[in-house]
Parts: sequence; structure tokens; C-alpha cells
Amino acid sequence: MQPITVIKIGGGEGIDLQPICEEVAQLVRAGQRIVLVHGGSHETNTLSERLGHPPRTIVSPSGHTSRRTDRQTLDTFTMVYCGRINKRIVEDLRVHGVDAIGLSGIDGGLWTGERKKAIRAIEDGRTVLIRDDLSGKVVAVDATLLTMLLESGRTPVLTPPAVTADGVAINVDADRAAAITASKLEAETLLLLSNVPGVLADPNDPDSLIADANSAGFDTVRAAAMGRMKNKVLAAEEAIAGSVRRVVIGSANGDNAIGRALTGRGTVFAAQQIVTTTEHATARAIVEGS
Amino acid sequence: MQPITVIKIGGGEGIDLQPICEEVAQLVRAGQRIVLVHGGSHETNTLSERLGHPPRTIVSPSGHTSRRTDRQTLDTFTMVYCGRINKRIVEDLRVHGVDAIGLSGIDGGLWTGERKKAIRAIEDGRTVLIRDDLSGKVVAVDATLLTMLLESGRTPVLTPPAVTADGVAINVDADRAAAITASKLEAETLLLLSNVPGVLADPNDPDSLIADANSAGFDTVRAAAMGRMKNKVLAAEEAIAGSVRRVVIGSANGDNAIGRALTGRGTVFAAQQIVTTTEHATARAIVEGS
Repeated sequence: MQPITVIKIGGGEGIDLQPICEEVAQLVRAGQRIVLVHGGSHETNTLSERLGHPPRTIVSPSGHTSRRTDRQTLDTFTMVYCGRINKRIVEDLRVHGVDAIGLSGIDGGLWTGERKKAIRAIEDGRTVLIRDDLSGKVVAVDATLLTMLLESGRTPVLTPPAVTADGVAINVDADRAAAITASKLEAETLLLLSNVPGVLADPNDPDSLIADANSAGFDTVRAAAMGRMKNKVLAAEEAIAGSVRRVVIGSANGDNAIGRALTGRGTVFAAQQIVTTTEHATARAIVEGS
Repeated sequence: MQPITVIKIGGGEGIDLQPICEEVAQLVRAGQRIVLVHGGSHETNTLSERLGHPPRTIVSPSGHTSRRTDRQTLDTFTMVYCGRINKRIVEDLRVHGVDAIGLSGIDGGLWTGERKKAIRAIEDGRTVLIRDDLSGKVVAVDATLLTMLLESGRTPVLTPPAVTADGVAINVDADRAAAITASKLEAETLLLLSNVPGVLADPNDPDSLIADANSAGFDTVRAAAMGRMKNKVLAAEEAIAGSVRRVVIGSANGDNAIGRALTGRGTVFAAQQIVTTTEHATARAIVEGS
């Protein structure tokens, strides 16, 4: 069987899904096994504004940002992510001959998540606790369902929300959901594509791309990441800590975006050389000075 | 294996999905195999109004009504049907312990349809031709995918749109989509539940329910049906002409709506006594006078 590639396409402003779908179709025709994950933040914000319930952002004390998700926001979120964008991608892929199947994390309990009990947030310089947010993170993936779909020649197109074990839909970060999906599927490669070229050492200097996260050191990359990029770096680290061999944070824009990311354009995270149990024990003995 | 029941829940005003989901959960817990199909017309109309693109209705020369579906309408339609309502039902079912999985007809090519090339419509008393409508009807169902899901203990929750063989999403009538799904799955029973109690002999007299479509005669039932009920009667006839043993057009409202329909409350269509091939040949010989 071909190795699996998980491709996350961001939902930021200006990302054109059509060339992405064309490129996915080329890869699938060439026999690649692809799982697509997508976001939809920009269109959710636009629709929320139009429906008179403008988006709000939560900033954690450590600077991570996330969407404030009350019931009405989740409703709009679900319409845009599961309805408009997911079905548009599935339709585009089918036009290009791909047997795509769209699923949210709710469906079949594909992405089971844990809801945050309370979120510490910075508001007007003070730390507050938010207790009613419908958000959390994915902790389990139904890899059996995805494998069954891949083996029957289908291309899964996945989107938040996820769902708790007791059935409540929750907003989750799609980059990290893609990361755990890639880990559980034992994917070889995870691409996190959005409207930025990768992690910049200086966010104001587009030429300061950190190309090799391993050479730079994950700590350095993590420190350089700002705003939404923080989640992407976290996702990349989680995937590498899983079984994924390579993660590329790269651009979703321009011609051949997937092809460019696959050849390493962007910020590349690579799994360290595989260490056997004996080597690992030896290495740990050295580190621990025993 | 338990026989399959296909239950279509209408998307008209005032239908409360929560008790329906509870009842489905009871049936699934009791070992029944259920496929749920839903509409979403009322909420689509409401959202279309809010987004400044009010719904329009096409009336055919024979009096059938359907939604005028341009690209923008299909976009809103997909948000409401596939996003809001489908995921709300899946979430509700999961809260009640059902491993529900939501799919549109686009996903995996579940409902392959034929797009109408031109629609004859009555506008201001004149017949006009509409050529750019994104609508059609389902002609094939991927019963293998549905059976695979049912056999793995999942409950499929299905919704329009369908998709053409070359990948274009099309609006289809959900009652008739449920009918062909029931036929292809060789379901025993099809329930078509909405905010009316069944087919009325006199649409202005709620006590004029036609309880037994076979005794009344399908021609009489068809002639009595007005507006959206025409599609339900057509769907019922199509299911019976398929392999479905029994179709009930009944109410989705009140306590125990599914249970009441299953016990025959509504307008019941029953397959005629099963005729063996020999009997069929004999019968045809008699009819044909040879």
C-alpha cells in the first residue's frame, strides 16, 4: 500500500481551494492515499458578521488564540465548515474524478475530543475563567473507519467540529486534529498549508523563513511562532512525537502548492533517526549520567 | 439481520427533531436497523431571507412544486441541510448513544442523480423553460456503502444534495431520495413523516385522512395530493414499485411519532401479495388475453 499523506488546508482569507483540489486529484490518480483536513475560519467570521453575531477571540495567558465558541457560534461554524466548505471540496474533487467523502469529526465519532472545563483567558489585561465554551481537543481518532474508506478507494475530507464521548459537538483546532489523525493513521507526511510560507524567525520579515526546524531546534521554532502559527508548530511537534516521519508548514497559495510543500518548501520538521529500545536506553543512561 | 426501516423526516416549520432522535435511539438500542433521511426546507427559506436571497418556487404544468435552485441557493441549501440540520441530528443521536454518521448524497457518490436539462414551469400563467437549475433526481444509490455502515453498527443520517456522475451537486427531493434508498436497501418499511397527518381526501378537512391507499386506489390518492404532498405520494408509489413492503405517510409531530407511523397511523401503502414468477407469467397471460 502507498504511504498516507495527510494534508491540512487552512481556512484563512484568500486561499483558493480549486487548485488544491486539482493537485489532490493528480496525486490520487497517481495512486497516492490522501486524507484532506480543512478549516474555515475566515468564512465563519464573515457569516457570523452577516448574521449579527460577530466572532470573538480568546487569548490564553501564554498567547495562544482560539475562537470563542458559544452555541450560536458553533451553529454558524458547523454550517460553514461541514456544509459550505466541506461539500464544496467534495464536489470539486468529484468533478476531478476523485471518490471523495466528507465527514466531520462528529460523524461516526471520528474525532473524539475532550471539552475544556474552564479556559483561562486574558481580557483587558486581566485573567478570567470562561466555563461555557464549546471547545476542546481531539484525543482519539477512529482510524478503522478512515482505513476502511481509504481501502475502498475513497478520499476522506475531514473537518471540525469533533465530539465528546457523550455526544456534544466541540470546536477543535483543525491543525492539531490533522496531526493526531496523521499519527493514528501512521501517515508518512503531514502538510499544514495556509496563507503564510512557514514559520518566520522575524514575523515582519517574509525572508526570515525557518526552513529546517530540526537544525534551528524545536524550542527556537516554538518561540518564533506568533498567533495562529503557535497551533501549527504545536501540531507539527505532536505529529512528530507520534509516528509521522515529516511535517511541512507551508503555503497553500500559488501553483503546485502541495507539490512544493512535498519537496520541502516551508518549515520542515523531521522525525529523528529511529532509535531502537537498546539505543534509547543507552542514550538515556548517558543523558542521566549513570 | 433485522429488517431495515428508512425514516424520512420533513424539514417543514414546527417539526421538533429531538423527540424523533430519542425514538430512533430507542429503536436502535432495541436492535433495529434504521436509516434516517431528512429535509430542511423551512430553515433554508429562513436563512435565504436573512442572506438577502429569498426563496423562489417552481410550479410545473402538472402542479408539482420544487425549489428554484441557482448556485447561491444551493450554497445556502448545503449549509443548512449538510451543516446545521445533519450535524444537529447526528449530535442528538450520539447524545442518546447512537453511533450516527451523517452523509450528504454528494459524499462517496452516495446518491447519484441526473440533472434536469430544462424545467417547464408556470410563471404568470405562461409556460417557461428554465435551463440553469441545479436540480434533478436520484437514479442510483451506493447501497454497498450504506450496508457497510449498518453492518458496523452505525446509523446513517442522509441528506440532499445528490451529485451527478460528473460531480455536480444537485438539489433533489428528499422524499423520493428516501424512496429509492429504501428500494435499493431492500428495506421493509419506509416512513415519510412531516407536519401533516397523511393524505387528505379533502385538503381543507383534517378528518378526511385516506388511511388505506390500497383500498382507496393509488390513482385516487394521487389525485387527492396537493402541493408538496404530490412528491410524497410519488415517493410512496416508487418505493412500493421497488422492493419496499410498506410505506406510511404520517405525522412527525407529537409523542411517539415513529411508533404511531409504524403501527399504521397515516396513509398506508402496502405492496401487493408477492407473486411468484410462474404466477406472474400466468397473470400476465390472463391480462394479455393469450
